[in-house]
Amino acid sequence: MNFCSHCGSAAIAKTIPEDDNRVRDVCPDCGSIFYENPKIVAGCLLEWQGSLLLCRRAIEPRRGYWTLPAGFMEKGESLAEGAAREALEEANAQADHLSLYNCFSLPHISQVYVMFRGTLRDGAAAAGAESLEVGLYEEAEIPWDNLAFPIVVHSLQYYFEDRRAGHFQTRVGVIRRTANQRLEVIADTLA
Amino acid sequence: MNFCSHCGSAAIAKTIPEDDNRVRDVCPDCGSIFYENPKIVAGCLLEWQGSLLLCRRAIEPRRGYWTLPAGFMEKGESLAEGAAREALEEANAQADHLSLYNCFSLPHISQVYVMFRGTLRDGAAAAGAESLEVGLYEEAEIPWDNLAFPIVVHSLQYYFEDRRAGHFQTRVGVIRRTANQRLEVIADTLA
Repeated sequence: MNFCSHCGSAAIAKTIPEDDNRVRDVCPDCGSIFYENPKIVAGCLLEWQGSLLLCRRAIEPRRGYWTLPAGFMEKGESLAEGAAREALEEANAQADHLSLYNCFSLPHISQVYVMFRGTLRDGAAAAGAESLEVGLYEEAEIPWDNLAFPIVVHSLQYYFEDRRAGHFQTRVGVIRRTANQRLEVIADTLA
Repeated sequence: MNFCSHCGSAAIAKTIPEDDNRVRDVCPDCGSIFYENPKIVAGCLLEWQGSLLLCRRAIEPRRGYWTLPAGFMEKGESLAEGAAREALEEANAQADHLSLYNCFSLPHISQVYVMFRGTLRDGAAAAGAESLEVGLYEEAEIPWDNLAFPIVVHSLQYYFEDRRAGHFQTRVGVIRRTANQRLEVIADTLA
């Protein structure tokens, strides 16, 4: 932030406002305080006859790698509506029977992934503007070495684990970047 | 948004960027696109010997009304860390055993409430800077007519309902403003 988006001042300073305990972008000329907060990514695992819908990314980051339909939640929609919209936009897929599945916090990039699970209507899907191709994959066919993000790997692993156990459980986890730059999942609960 | 926060231009226009389908604030001079997304409110229901921790708000909106510890999630933290931080800031309360409880989308104000449930360590709490007072309330003593927000009413109702049933279930709901300006809760799932 170089300029105040309210008054145009170039004097924006990083400072802790009164009655706050965090550094914010503050405009000393008009007093505006600019808060930045984590963003929500809403997505879904859609099953059709035992296979899951994946999309191959047509955009960076990770162009060419496989992912689940997911994207930034927009203003004015609910979590499930956001997940369904992403399936439609990225895979021309209609999501049915969506229910909450996993919530993953990614503090190192200030994102929260909220993943739903559901079924793919009629098994119909086709690449949207942000996808090179889409496909339905059985567990044994998942392109594990070519998945776009750790969150996708973990979501799929939990899904198949739960499906085998015959019980889907809602998990709330954190994916952290550790000292050696690897990512690890831990439960996001306080014991 | 009156000025571009990147280059200071006063020519900010509301337009749909290429490869997008929504109106954004766009700077025609430097090309910056400014996205606004829903914010996450993280909070918790903390129980101590059958009573729940409530805070009476010292700030607007709804100053003087009772609420659950909750507030905007900050960058760099997980959902549970945000919920625990709010309990500490608003009620000097230590949250133990937090587990995910409810997710409520509030599309009319573009917020998502993620509520945890847990226990209040040692039953200890005292008003923080944003609270006039704090208190532990049994179900029969909850100040139902003086609760700050519909989300607080619904969270408490579900909590006591689940507790009576002997089983806490994670719900994902939407609180919508209806045509007659009332708020109603519906399940946020696609059938």
